[in-house]
This record gives sequence, structure tokens and C-alpha cells, in this order.
Amino acid sequence: MTSALLQHSETLTIPPMGADRVRQRIDRTTKRVNHHIDALCPSTPADACATWLPPGQATEATGASAPVVARRLHRALTAPVRHLADAGGRRWRPVLLWEVIELLGGDSEHCGPLIAATELLHTGSLIVDDVQDASPLRRGRPAVHTVFGVPTAVNAGTAAYFLWDRAVQLTFPDDAARRGDVRALGLAALRAAHAGQALDLQGHGEEMDQAVAGGDRHTALDLVRVTHRLKSGSPVAAALEAAGFVTGAEPELRRALGAFGSAVGTAYQITDDVADLRGVMRAGAPTKQAAEDLRSGKVTMPLAHAVGRLPQHDLNRIWQQMREGSGSATAVVETRRELAACGAVQACLDEADQLVNSAWSQLEPLLPATDHSRWLYELALSIVRRDQVA
Amino acid sequence: MTSALLQHSETLTIPPMGADRVRQRIDRTTKRVNHHIDALCPSTPADACATWLPPGQATEATGASAPVVARRLHRALTAPVRHLADAGGRRWRPVLLWEVIELLGGDSEHCGPLIAATELLHTGSLIVDDVQDASPLRRGRPAVHTVFGVPTAVNAGTAAYFLWDRAVQLTFPDDAARRGDVRALGLAALRAAHAGQALDLQGHGEEMDQAVAGGDRHTALDLVRVTHRLKSGSPVAAALEAAGFVTGAEPELRRALGAFGSAVGTAYQITDDVADLRGVMRAGAPTKQAAEDLRSGKVTMPLAHAVGRLPQHDLNRIWQQMREGSGSATAVVETRRELAACGAVQACLDEADQLVNSAWSQLEPLLPATDHSRWLYELALSIVRRDQVA
Repeated sequence: MTSALLQHSETLTIPPMGADRVRQRIDRTTKRVNHHIDALCPSTPADACATWLPPGQATEATGASAPVVARRLHRALTAPVRHLADAGGRRWRPVLLWEVIELLGGDSEHCGPLIAATELLHTGSLIVDDVQDASPLRRGRPAVHTVFGVPTAVNAGTAAYFLWDRAVQLTFPDDAARRGDVRALGLAALRAAHAGQALDLQGHGEEMDQAVAGGDRHTALDLVRVTHRLKSGSPVAAALEAAGFVTGAEPELRRALGAFGSAVGTAYQITDDVADLRGVMRAGAPTKQAAEDLRSGKVTMPLAHAVGRLPQHDLNRIWQQMREGSGSATAVVETRRELAACGAVQACLDEADQLVNSAWSQLEPLLPATDHSRWLYELALSIVRRDQVA
Repeated sequence: MTSALLQHSETLTIPPMGADRVRQRIDRTTKRVNHHIDALCPSTPADACATWLPPGQATEATGASAPVVARRLHRALTAPVRHLADAGGRRWRPVLLWEVIELLGGDSEHCGPLIAATELLHTGSLIVDDVQDASPLRRGRPAVHTVFGVPTAVNAGTAAYFLWDRAVQLTFPDDAARRGDVRALGLAALRAAHAGQALDLQGHGEEMDQAVAGGDRHTALDLVRVTHRLKSGSPVAAALEAAGFVTGAEPELRRALGAFGSAVGTAYQITDDVADLRGVMRAGAPTKQAAEDLRSGKVTMPLAHAVGRLPQHDLNRIWQQMREGSGSATAVVETRRELAACGAVQACLDEADQLVNSAWSQLEPLLPATDHSRWLYELALSIVRRDQVA
């Protein structure tokens, strides 16, 4: 294990609420979130038409074929989405959204469909990601495409994005203006996330070549940042800005909420890059292969931060092994050690904290001054620092 | 060649405007449509950030990495989408939308982005379809996934759906209510289309088994109808209902427009099933393999209509060959002949016409009574009967 990774939680300033109380509260909120996920995408075949068809079409698909249609939609949409959703995951996105709505004086139970949709949109994106990365394993289960096939995985993953639309309709049946606002947020997030995925799929190999050759990490690091922000920051930004809309927040507060969501989502992706280095275990089993990014030659933030921190000769060796896929298991372990020892891992963890702190400093003055507001900050740090969540 | 296919255009009542004038008008409108497609998804790398990023994110992606980001978005989003869009296609969806807006007294030029988005949404769905069906060829070109790879094809195809969102913003920059209405229509269409694709991907083999065994085509035929309506009818319904919103039409007219769009889109898919039987040639070259559906064992409308029309023994043989993929090239030609000779092909063509006529009879009384309204009907028939378009 790398020293920086192990030391990280020891060097934290433990938030005043305390890890146990943070955990208890997260557990409580997660239970409510789970209930709303079940309600938005129920695992009963009879509900499949209402779940997946827009209202007009759901009523048209009646007659002899209606039960057949429901069974089919269940099989090809509900089942693959629930295959992954039921495998758990941290579910910090809906928990965060729930808490923000509460803090702003809104009714989280009433916004349950929207909160659930935040998680299921994320679920959909993981299903499609796993197709694109040909990943065999997710959350300790076989990836959706390995069970249901690529065509159904792509279709169901994409369809899950549009549960946001169902949620908007369920949450604001009588408020067209609010529906318009919240639909716009969801669409903007989907646009940004697909642009981020476009950058991610191409990788940052060219910029890393230049960085390794010239010793300047600037451009490669910037590209990783933009990619993380678009792909991982945008959906959380949209969710938190939606919280602003549903609670009637002023534009300034809405913008600050969006920026805070963007920061938390982006920072989480940064610490996800770090977590990938060591692999993620849950209940004693790996949820995916450790150091997958190193093995697949993917330029992540720890690698970009290593430029200028590692001796040129070592960096050259590491990057060449990554590009050629020639690193042995021992070499991968050694690379993990080097990335920690040179300070690249710590630079990532610092950048993640700093993103959250900076956005928080803009948001905090606009929030109602209660203990609850401090708790939101603690929750965000817990999420980004990962080990205290789920 | 099957006799029903050849005779089809001879048995039409030629619309009063005449095929030549229909064609000229389509050509003129198509030119305008093409201009707006170029504007919504420009083929210049410098425009890629504005095309693919939502407004807030487009301005944030500045600094040293901005030109790199633009180049990358161009490569992974614009290039694959334009690879297929530039291969032509009939572009009847935007032409139809253009004409409906004109007929309703709207400004089609002003709605250009929305009209273009209708075509590019369709383009995106074809890109994803070709991944899911592993089709090598589309519009006479290598399918996008064979050129750009599956991950980029899936991502770019899906991203193209959200050009609708960009178009909404460009068309109604100062009208939040209208943006809300038109975004809702796009999202409902996307939900319906993914449900339709879920049905399509599973195929209707089980129902065809029962139909062949019992001689009752009812359920199998119904499922093909629902699938076609969801997948192919919904997007056109959304486009035409959007025309109602942008021109301030009353709800009754908007609903009739949506129903007419649904009918035209569904009917086009029915005649697409028929066209697949013979293969589609353009400029002397096949745009895709003839009778692909028969070869791949797909239950289409001509096959479902053959139940109860073909002698049980012949149907059994055909269906068994299709299920096993054991039909020789000669057998496929023979099947095409049998489907035409038994009246199944004609039943499809009649059903397509009937769908359009029935929806038209509801829509016509609500339209302004001008020659232009008659021309809309002629255009719709031309589209559905295919040979007079593009």
C-alpha cells in the first residue's frame, strides 16, 4: 500500500459532527432514497409501461398486446437497470441532493422521484461506460452488457437517463415552468457529460507524450480536469441547481449550488482516480480490478500530477510501459508506489479538497445559517474523501 | 422482383400536384434544411465547443486547453455524426416539419435549428442502431462504428439526440415557456423511442412462433405495430407537435398534428420493412444488403401479415429457415416472392396508406384551408410511398 493513501484519512481534520454521526445520517437518508428508487423504477413487470413510456404512449399501448409489451419492457429495460442499481453503490449523489433540499427548506420526500432519477441517470451512464470500456465487472457483479448483451445494455443505459423526465413529471405535475427549468438542467448535464465522455474515450495520450517529453504537466492536467468536470461534475451540478429551483432559491444561490455540485462531482472523480490505483474492495471482494487505469494506459490525474514530480527517467519508463501495455504485475505495484512517493497522489487529494473548499466558501454565506449547513460541508468532504461513505 | 412491389406505384392515385412538382418543392426545401443542418452541427473544428457543450460549460472551457478540447470534440462527436449525415438520406423528417410550420403560418427559417435537430436526432439513432444490429453499411457508406469504433459511435450517436436541446435554446432564446414545451416533446419522443428499441431488439420471435403454430397473426402484428409506432412514429409526432407549439396552435390542432406525425413515421417504417425485402439502391449501388431482415430472422410487418395468408406449410418452412438462418440465397428470393404473392406485402402498403389517410382526416378540418394544406397530404403520401422522395 502506498503511504500517501494510507495516511490520507489520518491527516484529515475530523469534521465536528464526527464520522459516526455522519455515517448514521447517511444511512438514514439512503434508506429513504432507496425507497424512491424502487418507486421510480419498480421491479414489478406490471409497472414497466408506466416507467418507460411517456404518459400518452402508456395509455395507447393497451389491448391484447399490453401485457406482452409490459413484460418485454421489463425484461429489456427494468431488469438491466436494476441489475446494476440493486448492486448498491455509494448512492452519495441522491443523498447529497436530499440533504441540500432539506437544508433549503424543501420537501425531500416530495422531490423523491427527482432524487431517485439522479442515481438512476448515474446508473445508466455506468452501464454505457462499461460497454465502451469493455469492463467485465462493476460493483462486484458482472457488468450489464456481459449479462444482457451490448445492444440491450446500450439501450437500457440510455433509457435510464430519461427517467429524469419521468421524475420531473411526477414531481411537478401542475407546474409547467418548474418542469421546464428542471428538464433544461437535466439536458444540459447530459450534453456536458457526453462531451466529457468524448474527451475521455480519446484519452489524453498525445498530451501526455508532450508532457513526458517536455516535463510540463500543464496541458495534460488541464485536459483531465476539463474531462472530469464535464463528465462527473456536470450531473451533480445539475442536481444541486435543481434543488435550488425546487426550493425557489434566488439565481445567485442556484449558481453557487451548481458550482458546489460541480466541485463535489469533479473532486469525487479525482479521488476515484486515486482509488483506482489501489482497487476498491467491498465485503472482502474487489469491485473491479485494481489499477485498471494503469494497465489500460489511461492518463488519470495522479499520472498527470507526476509530470515534473517524478525524475524524467522514471516517468519515461512508466509511460512507455503504460502505452505498450508491457508493465508486469510487479511493475504496476512499483508504479503505484512511485506515484504516491513523488507526491502526485497527495496533489490529487489536495486538489479534490481544495475544489470543495473553494466552492463551499462561495456557497456558505448564501445558505441559511444552521448546524445543518455545516453538516452539508461535512457530508461533501466525506463523499470526496470516500472512506467514510457507504 | 415481386409483382406487388413493382405494381405499387402504378396503382397509386397520383396526387393532383403531380410527382414532378412534389419533387421540385421537396428539393427546394431540402436545400434550406441542409443549410440549417450545417449551422446546427458545423463541420469546422473551431465550432465544436459551441455545438456540443451547454452554454455555461462552453465559456468555462477556455485557457490553454480550449483549442485542444475543440479539436477533440470535433473528432469524437462532429466527425462521426457528419460522416453519416453527409451521406445524405431522404431527410423527409425535416422537410415535413418545415412544410408544416409554413402551412401553420410560422417562420421555418427561424425554426431552422429545430428542423435540423429533427434530422440529426434521427442520424444519432441510426448510428446507435447500427452498433446494436452490427450493420456494416448505411447509406452506402461504412457504418459509423466500423470507422470510429463502437465506443465513439455510441457516444456520438447519443450526443446527437441532445442537439435538440441546443436547437431549442437557439430557436427560443427569450421564451422559457416555449423552451419548456419543446424540450418536453423531445424528451417524450426519446423515452418512447428507447422503449420501441427495447421491443425491437428482443424481436417478436416468441409471438411469431405462436402465430405460425396457431395461424393467428393478431398478437405478432400488434407488437410490430406498437414497436414501429414507438420507435419510428414518436419522433415525427414530437416534431409535428412542436410545429404546433411554435406557431401557437390550439391543443386540439397540436394533438392532431402529433397524431399525423405518428402516422407518417409509423407508416414509413412499415414501407421500410417492405423496402428491405428488395433492398434499396441509390445511384446504382446498394445502400444496404437486400432482405437483411429475412436473413437475420427479424419479424417484420410483411412476415406478420403473411400469417393466415400463406398456407401453413409454407409459412412453417419460411419461419424455420429464418429462425435457423438456414435459408439459401435462392430461398430468400423465393420467400420475397411468396410474401408478395400471398398479399402480405400489399396488406402492409394498404395499412401504411390507411394510417396516413385516417390521421389526415382528423387533421385536415383543423388546418387553414389552402392549397398548401393539400400539398402537405401529398407530401406525406410521397414520403410513405417512398419512391417519389429523394
